[in-house]
Amino acid sequence: MSHDLFERHRETLEQATEATRTRAYFSAFNESPSPRVYGEEAAAGGKAAFEAMCGEAFPLSTPGAEGTVGTEKSPFGFSLDISYPRVTEAGVPALVSAASAGLKEFRDAGPVVRTGVCLEILARLHARIFELANAVQHTSGQAFVMAFQAGGAHALDRALESVAYAYAEMTRVPHVAVWEKPGKGEPLRMEKTFTPVPRGIALVIGCNTFPTWNSWPGFFASLACGNPVIVKPHPGAVLPLAITVQVAQEVLAEAGFDKNLVTLAAEDPADGLAKTLAVRPEVKLIDFTGSNAFGDWLEDNARQAIVFTEKAGVNTVVVDSTDDFKGMCMNLAFSFSLYTGQMCTAPQNVYLPADGIETDQGPKSVKEVAAGINVALEKLLGDDARAVELLGGVVNDGVLSRLSEAPGRGEVLVESRVVKHPAYDDAVVRTPTLIGVSAADASVYESECFGPVSYLISTSGTEESIDLFRSTVMAHGAMTAAVYSSSPEVIASMRDAALDAGVALSENLTGQVFVNQSAAFSDFHGTGANPAANASYTDTAYVASRFRVIQSRRHI
Amino acid sequence: MSHDLFERHRETLEQATEATRTRAYFSAFNESPSPRVYGEEAAAGGKAAFEAMCGEAFPLSTPGAEGTVGTEKSPFGFSLDISYPRVTEAGVPALVSAASAGLKEFRDAGPVVRTGVCLEILARLHARIFELANAVQHTSGQAFVMAFQAGGAHALDRALESVAYAYAEMTRVPHVAVWEKPGKGEPLRMEKTFTPVPRGIALVIGCNTFPTWNSWPGFFASLACGNPVIVKPHPGAVLPLAITVQVAQEVLAEAGFDKNLVTLAAEDPADGLAKTLAVRPEVKLIDFTGSNAFGDWLEDNARQAIVFTEKAGVNTVVVDSTDDFKGMCMNLAFSFSLYTGQMCTAPQNVYLPADGIETDQGPKSVKEVAAGINVALEKLLGDDARAVELLGGVVNDGVLSRLSEAPGRGEVLVESRVVKHPAYDDAVVRTPTLIGVSAADASVYESECFGPVSYLISTSGTEESIDLFRSTVMAHGAMTAAVYSSSPEVIASMRDAALDAGVALSENLTGQVFVNQSAAFSDFHGTGANPAANASYTDTAYVASRFRVIQSRRHI
Repeated sequence: MSHDLFERHRETLEQATEATRTRAYFSAFNESPSPRVYGEEAAAGGKAAFEAMCGEAFPLSTPGAEGTVGTEKSPFGFSLDISYPRVTEAGVPALVSAASAGLKEFRDAGPVVRTGVCLEILARLHARIFELANAVQHTSGQAFVMAFQAGGAHALDRALESVAYAYAEMTRVPHVAVWEKPGKGEPLRMEKTFTPVPRGIALVIGCNTFPTWNSWPGFFASLACGNPVIVKPHPGAVLPLAITVQVAQEVLAEAGFDKNLVTLAAEDPADGLAKTLAVRPEVKLIDFTGSNAFGDWLEDNARQAIVFTEKAGVNTVVVDSTDDFKGMCMNLAFSFSLYTGQMCTAPQNVYLPADGIETDQGPKSVKEVAAGINVALEKLLGDDARAVELLGGVVNDGVLSRLSEAPGRGEVLVESRVVKHPAYDDAVVRTPTLIGVSAADASVYESECFGPVSYLISTSGTEESIDLFRSTVMAHGAMTAAVYSSSPEVIASMRDAALDAGVALSENLTGQVFVNQSAAFSDFHGTGANPAANASYTDTAYVASRFRVIQSRRHI
Repeated sequence: MSHDLFERHRETLEQATEATRTRAYFSAFNESPSPRVYGEEAAAGGKAAFEAMCGEAFPLSTPGAEGTVGTEKSPFGFSLDISYPRVTEAGVPALVSAASAGLKEFRDAGPVVRTGVCLEILARLHARIFELANAVQHTSGQAFVMAFQAGGAHALDRALESVAYAYAEMTRVPHVAVWEKPGKGEPLRMEKTFTPVPRGIALVIGCNTFPTWNSWPGFFASLACGNPVIVKPHPGAVLPLAITVQVAQEVLAEAGFDKNLVTLAAEDPADGLAKTLAVRPEVKLIDFTGSNAFGDWLEDNARQAIVFTEKAGVNTVVVDSTDDFKGMCMNLAFSFSLYTGQMCTAPQNVYLPADGIETDQGPKSVKEVAAGINVALEKLLGDDARAVELLGGVVNDGVLSRLSEAPGRGEVLVESRVVKHPAYDDAVVRTPTLIGVSAADASVYESECFGPVSYLISTSGTEESIDLFRSTVMAHGAMTAAVYSSSPEVIASMRDAALDAGVALSENLTGQVFVNQSAAFSDFHGTGANPAANASYTDTAYVASRFRVIQSRRHI
């Protein structure tokens, strides 16, 4: 097997690996969709490629599939009408068998060759980044620039991070070592060979909102470690992963491997294909992003596999005081608005003292804090044409119905409004709402209300806010937490509570960094230390159990 | 917190860490019990210390314990009559609460201080190595020198290995990093803090045969990562772990920590304490060595914890041919005899062609191979006084009854005999037996027969031998495998089968390295890739999930 692909991308890999150790800023894929970066033709070309796929059969074959299925509808108001090979329970044995067929050759090729294949797949996905951005936009409902960044460049960075971790772990021990034990006469000498071997088939179960960003880390970690990957996309967001599979198959075949090492298992939602695949004895690794209900089901039932889940939680902000009231309100408003709050990292619970807070603009009551956020929201979202570029579209009816029920849960401090998309008449676009409740209303704020609904929760003071933060996150999980305070004691106390609750903390964000964003190579996404996720993008634990080292030894 | 302990042992840690990367020979603890190494007084002092403990209450208190329990009987024929604080279900809440009390201070001390504490515990256990060797000898039944080596020096090396892995992982990311993202104007600058935090309480469930060697890796990995450790020893082998807990408490207290970060939970076997502890919500990590039945129960029921198990398997030797018939027979005879075959790594199934094998002494039939092994056994075990130093004693009645049933399972090729211990009249000592069966007798050889019973299994040829090796290990697991062949093709085919089956392979061992021995820092013990164990001593996966990294970030 050739090391050419690895050598082609070696420098990128080395920089990425170094960044995972220093945690300093690094990105291998430019996040700006500007023509100055990607060329004058790139945007139009990507859009045209996307449009050419709509209404057609996606050119991919899946062993065991029978007939086709098409399930995608853009939140911007049109059906994609793309059909994919449909896999049902009846086809699973053939799929699993085809997926396994190339395992041994891929295993024997070794970590360098497999890593080269993964890096080349990333490079070719990068070459199709505008097409991917359109695909992500019109499945998730993300606005275009966000789809380009989160669904394209940042997702590629997260994938590269995962490959870097996998490569570092697989090559942590040498392939061959000599062991020489001193003795009375001649030393005992042994030659030892260490081979990383894959676990078996890996299943990646995609989500609707971040089909690439959330699926690629597990996909690439498993593939680099030699595991064949079956991708089961969310029926609402198939295209971004179909493109992924297409590119992966292309690179695998060119490198001389069985293309079915990576397959797409699209389904009719009524088929419940994920459950069938998840408990197959051949499936040894599962990566899942989605609901607590199905994540818990996987953890309980797919006992033959190692299961990595990112589920839901209650992201929390503790507001104690601030020396930049305007910056705080603007930062929070942005985090509430970005992609209509449909991020697993978007803040939901804002705890603050019922008596109000101290700020650089003097004391502010709870209502005044809400008003400050409202001013910021109006600035961000007052103009419909600009608003849609931040909000994107509502991904599904569940979000809409939670939004419509929200006013019944407390005092409406900021109302949601309907936004008219200038380009897509049938797009469903809403602004976030802010509901005022008290610390006693635990039944309201202790469960996740996915979408653009946040609670301003009045407490007896910051001490109670921090206690509620700690206990709510320990019981219900969180992907993110934030604190605003000009008191070093409060910051220290909040850091301590974050260690107890096992959640990442952002302190006094008032500028262009937002609590719902995490940067590859530097920020860990999820901790695995609270109920919202059992794993983290990306740490060593995320990759180390995707392969095992098998040794042999002999005298020399 | 002081870094003194860490600095005291830093060089040892660095050497150990380097060895885990090169996999070259390293040992930090001398394996020779010679007075030239340990001094003239050491052996007698250790024996006297052990004898002084017999018949007394062990000086240790356990929160929640009520009354005492004494359950240990030496396989060399006397009762230890040592009593320990007895923990029952009623005392578990108090125990768990006391174990948790010091967690936060230990967490906040950080990885350097915690690693220093662990290394100091190892140094003090090393200072008591002769006492530990007596304790291991008279609980497990290992002969003294083996108890000194496997239960003392090698166990300390395995523990150090585990601490080295834990420290490397905890410090893989910096404690503080600066992240600076270039922008149009001023760059975005963030300071980020990364803190490794423990999972919660760790439970270590010890075994009868290797109370230290098998318990210390998990014990030290969990403790270094900040998790309080409750040690539930096997009722037959409490003392080695009681000494461990005593030393750990001493070091913890001197370093200013709560001594109950490490506790001993001795039980009456009828109490089933391990089950009660294993499902406590506070228990987040479990390390277990023992039966498949209880290991499987833990994996199925202790769902709130990450469970590391080393269970049982069917260790296999494939004999195809050899250019050193005498060396092969001697090596196999030693492996069968060492500690009466009561090692999880001892070979059980020897597959060889029914037509016999080619050797440097000409063709040998199956009976001639058995006779060759018998000659070697007689050389090793012919003299009772020498035999007991290799065999040790039979650990329990289960082993004896399996041995007595063995002749009914096939043709007795080598008979077991009773050995008279020159020093201990009531010691139960037996030599191994070798039973001839055919490939068709799968019901005999496909389950583990723990103790000095091995099967010579006649196959249609080496191809069938390798197929049976692969399928048996995949279905029933194995800790070790070996092959004898002078054909490079057979060796290659066996290596391939070992990768498929996920088991470590020893090739043509004819000298002073034995299939049932694995060297810390170089050999992985267990792979986690077959049913015999879900983890390995020690790889990154063994430590990486024992803590989580929690970050905080802020503008600077």
